[in-house]
Amino acid sequence: MRPEPNYFGAGPAVLPTPVLEQAARDLLEYAGQGVGIGEISHRSKPAIQVIDDTKQALKELLKIPDTHEVFFMQGGGTLGFSLIAYNLAGHYATVNGRKGRAAYAVTGSWLKKAAEEASRLGLDVDVVVDTKANKYTDIPETSEWKPVADDTAYLYICDNETVNGNEFPAPPPAEYVPEGCVLVADTSSNILLKPMDISRFGVVMAGAQKNIGLAGLTIYIVRKDLLPVDDAKARAAGVPLAPIAFKWDTVVANNSAYNTIPIFTCHVLNLVAQRVLHEQGGVEGMEKVNQQKAERLYAALDAFPGFYTVPVAKRVRLNMNVVFTLPSPELEEKFLKEAGEHQLSGLKGHRSVGGMRASIYNAVTLASVDKLVAFVREFAENNQ
Amino acid sequence: MRPEPNYFGAGPAVLPTPVLEQAARDLLEYAGQGVGIGEISHRSKPAIQVIDDTKQALKELLKIPDTHEVFFMQGGGTLGFSLIAYNLAGHYATVNGRKGRAAYAVTGSWLKKAAEEASRLGLDVDVVVDTKANKYTDIPETSEWKPVADDTAYLYICDNETVNGNEFPAPPPAEYVPEGCVLVADTSSNILLKPMDISRFGVVMAGAQKNIGLAGLTIYIVRKDLLPVDDAKARAAGVPLAPIAFKWDTVVANNSAYNTIPIFTCHVLNLVAQRVLHEQGGVEGMEKVNQQKAERLYAALDAFPGFYTVPVAKRVRLNMNVVFTLPSPELEEKFLKEAGEHQLSGLKGHRSVGGMRASIYNAVTLASVDKLVAFVREFAENNQ
Repeated sequence: MRPEPNYFGAGPAVLPTPVLEQAARDLLEYAGQGVGIGEISHRSKPAIQVIDDTKQALKELLKIPDTHEVFFMQGGGTLGFSLIAYNLAGHYATVNGRKGRAAYAVTGSWLKKAAEEASRLGLDVDVVVDTKANKYTDIPETSEWKPVADDTAYLYICDNETVNGNEFPAPPPAEYVPEGCVLVADTSSNILLKPMDISRFGVVMAGAQKNIGLAGLTIYIVRKDLLPVDDAKARAAGVPLAPIAFKWDTVVANNSAYNTIPIFTCHVLNLVAQRVLHEQGGVEGMEKVNQQKAERLYAALDAFPGFYTVPVAKRVRLNMNVVFTLPSPELEEKFLKEAGEHQLSGLKGHRSVGGMRASIYNAVTLASVDKLVAFVREFAENNQ
Repeated sequence: MRPEPNYFGAGPAVLPTPVLEQAARDLLEYAGQGVGIGEISHRSKPAIQVIDDTKQALKELLKIPDTHEVFFMQGGGTLGFSLIAYNLAGHYATVNGRKGRAAYAVTGSWLKKAAEEASRLGLDVDVVVDTKANKYTDIPETSEWKPVADDTAYLYICDNETVNGNEFPAPPPAEYVPEGCVLVADTSSNILLKPMDISRFGVVMAGAQKNIGLAGLTIYIVRKDLLPVDDAKARAAGVPLAPIAFKWDTVVANNSAYNTIPIFTCHVLNLVAQRVLHEQGGVEGMEKVNQQKAERLYAALDAFPGFYTVPVAKRVRLNMNVVFTLPSPELEEKFLKEAGEHQLSGLKGHRSVGGMRASIYNAVTLASVDKLVAFVREFAENNQ
């Protein structure tokens, strides 16, 4: 048993100690196989069971309707930028015989990159909202966004911007999204933190390495009718093709094992999902604890308004990435140093934003947050 | 300490027990970080050290010249089909202002897929040799291949065909490859098994999960001058673009961490490489043991010529994937069953080929091979 870490890194992030202990055992010997979980064939029965169990747990946790397929691919969110463009634009061309437009809501540095990638791949990109002017600290209502053009294949949002610490209070309303335009959400930082209405989305994508697993595996939840891409039609319409290993219809037809799935990484994801499902009251249980964690930490910061600054507007504060600054770079350095002396680590903000960032994902315990809260108070009292 | 497995799976394959034991410990707590190796940021100092150490070990092991860059990406060989096509065709268009052709030596089911993918992505593919007629059991000299056209961007070979069990006795000679055409080798099944003259190749690619690590990471060794791709020139020439996460020049400029590298998987690869380098006499040391393993196993099979059939011609027998058949499906089933009773597992041939396959990669010990050899003899004596 390792001492419980008080680690607030944004990703790869802390994982539950019992999960890592189980994973460490299974790395050496898995379920009577005589070898570890990372050494068996990805097409063997135990490997297929791991894949199926992970899918089933996610379906139960997120109440994923039968209209949607769950599958796994390597890569992460950055690869997702490209795969969503290739596959959804390809599907649009398959159905409509021409290239559709792609709409992006740029509410942080992550979606800015996503939009740039779609444009690089040759899609016609519309940025329907760009909150750079407010430094990505607030998200206006869709009534203030540009309208989405009718021939738009998809509208892509990042439900949470990890670097900037904002979160959509609710997805864009149905009336904003034109008929036939697919709503896409990147939920890498907030999947399994709380319930989510999957039926609103055509695509939900989440890298595992922040909240639910190791780096190297990404969850895709895609409406089944959106999967088929006719390569010839896509090419004729000027839509670039995804690598065959990441062509969604091929991946789904092969139960996420068309190419070699990193089965150890999938196993860790499964252990995390089973734990949330059977020991932590599901995502509803997680949401309760997560709200407490966020409330306590934001309350501590807000209690010292001249000292700590939380730049993000209250209505779009992302529960899980608490971004804040101090009055001077010297005080920020001192904060980090003394936090380290209190065994509180992973608190430095993203290099593009600066300041502090405490990521309080599922695996960060209430006890860890309480320790951070106590330090936040103490540091302010001693230094303001 | 787990009992040493006698496992002959083709990949994901067995890994050295001491490596897995170290990895299991590091999963919980790594180098005084208070958290495990899978939980730290991919841009933190310890993570960068893992990446750099792995690169350095591979450079030393394979004597990689300074003309070449070593880097890591997610995916595996199937993704490699696509990435090599995107990047090398893109580079050719960058330099020459037009699309080059792509040549494939189809010496097994793996390269057949690679050629199909390049064609799917819109490249003009020439199959310079196809040994399907001999069921991929032999590779003719290049004097019998079609010549490579002058405007060919690259010639792609699979140094080893894992499914079919053949291996190039030597790379195609320099005089066969036109000036400006890049020689590409997939070495997923035989990297670090023996020395290799990297300078002959523009690109050497190897998925980690067969011989040197867990699934989820692939090694690329690429001549530095081949890295740059001008997206606009590639697009103008009709060459499709790689996902930005897998655009080689971007990956190299970011030391393999443009997107989140699966650092646990890289760490396992590093542990394996360090062990070969410092404890096993380098690839030269591995080659000696591997030759003994292969000689003993092939000798045992060849000793019962009417009973065991090794379809692959002697000059192209891949040391590491020993493919053989028995006189009847019933005997093959009995062989697998009794092998299992002797704790010998992972011996079933690929579903597309049938029969048996014993993969005797680096981590399969001489002792394991000797046990298999004894069983091979005993089974033949009892059943022929």
